[in-house]
Amino acid sequence: MRIIVDAFGGDNAPIEIIKGAALAVQTGVQVLLTGKRQEIEAIAAKEGVELNGITIVDAPDIIDMQDEPRSILKEHKNSSMAQGLRCLAAGDGDAFVSAGSTGAMVIGATFYVKRIRGISRAALAPLLPGEKGPFMLIDAGANVESRAEMLLQFAHMGSLYMTNVIGNGKPASVGLVNVGTEDTKGGELQKEAFALLKQSGLNFIGNIEARDIPAGIADVVVADGFTGNVILKLTEGVASTIMKNIKDIFYTNTITKAAALMLKPHLKEFKKKMDASEYGGAPLLGIKKPVIKAHGNADAQTIKNAIRVAAEFAKKDVISQIADAVKPLDNQ
Amino acid sequence: MRIIVDAFGGDNAPIEIIKGAALAVQTGVQVLLTGKRQEIEAIAAKEGVELNGITIVDAPDIIDMQDEPRSILKEHKNSSMAQGLRCLAAGDGDAFVSAGSTGAMVIGATFYVKRIRGISRAALAPLLPGEKGPFMLIDAGANVESRAEMLLQFAHMGSLYMTNVIGNGKPASVGLVNVGTEDTKGGELQKEAFALLKQSGLNFIGNIEARDIPAGIADVVVADGFTGNVILKLTEGVASTIMKNIKDIFYTNTITKAAALMLKPHLKEFKKKMDASEYGGAPLLGIKKPVIKAHGNADAQTIKNAIRVAAEFAKKDVISQIADAVKPLDNQ
Repeated sequence: MRIIVDAFGGDNAPIEIIKGAALAVQTGVQVLLTGKRQEIEAIAAKEGVELNGITIVDAPDIIDMQDEPRSILKEHKNSSMAQGLRCLAAGDGDAFVSAGSTGAMVIGATFYVKRIRGISRAALAPLLPGEKGPFMLIDAGANVESRAEMLLQFAHMGSLYMTNVIGNGKPASVGLVNVGTEDTKGGELQKEAFALLKQSGLNFIGNIEARDIPAGIADVVVADGFTGNVILKLTEGVASTIMKNIKDIFYTNTITKAAALMLKPHLKEFKKKMDASEYGGAPLLGIKKPVIKAHGNADAQTIKNAIRVAAEFAKKDVISQIADAVKPLDNQ
Repeated sequence: MRIIVDAFGGDNAPIEIIKGAALAVQTGVQVLLTGKRQEIEAIAAKEGVELNGITIVDAPDIIDMQDEPRSILKEHKNSSMAQGLRCLAAGDGDAFVSAGSTGAMVIGATFYVKRIRGISRAALAPLLPGEKGPFMLIDAGANVESRAEMLLQFAHMGSLYMTNVIGNGKPASVGLVNVGTEDTKGGELQKEAFALLKQSGLNFIGNIEARDIPAGIADVVVADGFTGNVILKLTEGVASTIMKNIKDIFYTNTITKAAALMLKPHLKEFKKKMDASEYGGAPLLGIKKPVIKAHGNADAQTIKNAIRVAAEFAKKDVISQIADAVKPLDNQ
C-alpha cells in the first residue's frame, strides 16, 4: 500500500507533514511525498526525520488557502497538491492525503482524478465524534448549492463508507438534517430529498433535528454543503468555547487546580473521545480514487492517522461499491 | 404594563405557566392569562398560587405541538394561543408570551396581530449565550425559505432590538452566516444578502463562519430560517452532550465526586452563563406588537423571565423604530 501525501498543504506544512509521513512508514505503509524536494530533504536532515520508505516527487509550487481554488488547474497546476492528485490518477499510489485548501482539493480531484461515473458531485464527508462512536457528515462543504438527487447520492456514498470502512457491515443508518422530524418538514430541497431517500433502499431513519446529531442519532448525517459546513464548524465552535470556559474554571485558584488534577485522567479520555483528529481526515467521496482531506491545522499525529484512514479507504474498495450503487440510480 | 400569557402553551403548561405568571406579578407587572378558566383556578387553588394581579380570559381549546400550525386560524381558533394573540391585537395587554408551538405562533401573530407595514416576514430571534454576553440569532426558524431582502430586514430588526433593548445604544454589530469570511463566499442567497447588507448603513462586519458564532463574533447573527434553526438546535445539542459527559466524569468515583464538589460554585456560575433560559424567550420580530416565544420546556422561572423580557420589549418601543427603518427600504 502506498499513500501519496501533499507535503505542502496545511498550516503546519511541511514539517508536521514530513514527520507524520515518517510515523506512518513505521506502521508499514509506503509514502510518496509531493513538494519541493530540496526543502523536504533539508528539513528532514535538520529535524532528524528518516526518509526511508518515503519517495519524493518534486513539485515546485504551493497552492495556498488564500488562492482561488480554481487556480489549481492553471496558475498552480505545478503545486504539490496538483502534483499529488496527478500521481494518484496515474496510479503511482493507492490514495491521496492533503491538509491544504478544501476548495482546491475538490476542484483538483474532480479534474485530475475524475468523478465516479454517474456521480454528479464529490462530497466532503468528515467523521465527527458522537456519543456512540463516530458518525459521518456528508456534505460538509464541497458544494455550496445542492439538488435533491445530489443528497441522495451523498447518502448512498456515506452509507457504503460507514457500513464497510468504519462499521461491521451492518447497514449504516441515514438521517436527513431538517428543521423538524415530521416527514413534511423543510423547504423544497428537503421535501424532495426525503421522498428520494424514503424509496432508496438505504437504512433511512427520516428527518433528524440538529439537536440530536451530537448524540449520534444517525451513522450518516446528510445535508446540503452549506448546512453541512455550518454543522461542522459550529460543532467545533461550541465545543471549543465550552472547553475553554472549563479550563478557565480549573485555573481559578488552588482548590480548582487540585480538582482539575483529580479529574485529569478522565478528562484526557473524554478529550480523546471528542477529538476529531483521531479519525485522521475526511474522505472526499465520489472521486474515482481515495482522496482524504486532513484538517488544516493537522500535526504529525493527525497526518499519520489520515494516512491510516486513506489506506483503509483504499483497502476496502468502497469506490467500486459506490460505482455499482450509482449505476441503477444513473438509469432512473 | 400588562403582559398577556398563554397558560396552555409548552411542555409544562399550565402549572408552570401559572406559577411563572404569579412570580412575575410580584415584580410589578400585571398578567392576563388565556386558557381554560376553571382549570387555571382549580390548579392555582390546589398549588396555593395567588391569582392577585392576574386576569383570566377564558379560551376553551388548546393548540398542540402536533397540530398543523395553520389550524390556529380555523380548528384551533379558540385555543389559548389564538385568544392571547387576539387580546394583544385588541390592546388588552402590551405584549404576548407563549411557550407553545412556534409555527402556530408565527402564523397566528401574522394573522391576528399583523406584520409591521413593509416587513415581508416575521422572524424568530432568540438570544444565545456568547462569550461576551448574549447575541441574537435571526431567523431561527420562522421561515423555511428566505430571500435576500428578507435577510436584510432581519438584520435591521435584530440590530434595532440588540442596540436598544439589550445594548446601550451603541450600534450592534451584524454578521452574515456563511461558509467562509471572504466577501464572495456562499450561494446566491448569501451573495445577494451580502451586497444588500454592505450598503445597509448597519454596523455590518461581513460574512462570519459558524465556528466563530459561540465566541460572540457578532451581536446579531443573520441567517435564513433553515440555517438559523440548525444553528439554534445544534448549539443546544453540542452543549448538552458535552455537559452530560462531564457530569458522567464527575460521577465516576469518590475522587471525581470530591473534585466536582470543589468546582461546584464555579460550574454553577458557568451553567448560568450558558443558560439561554436566563434570557427568557425569543422575540418574534416584524409583528406590530411585542410577541415573545418562550422555550417549549419553560418552567416557572423561565416564564417569569420571558414576561420580564416582554415588558422590556414593549417599554423600549422597538417596533416603531423598526417601522421607521423599514419605510425607506419599502420605497426602494
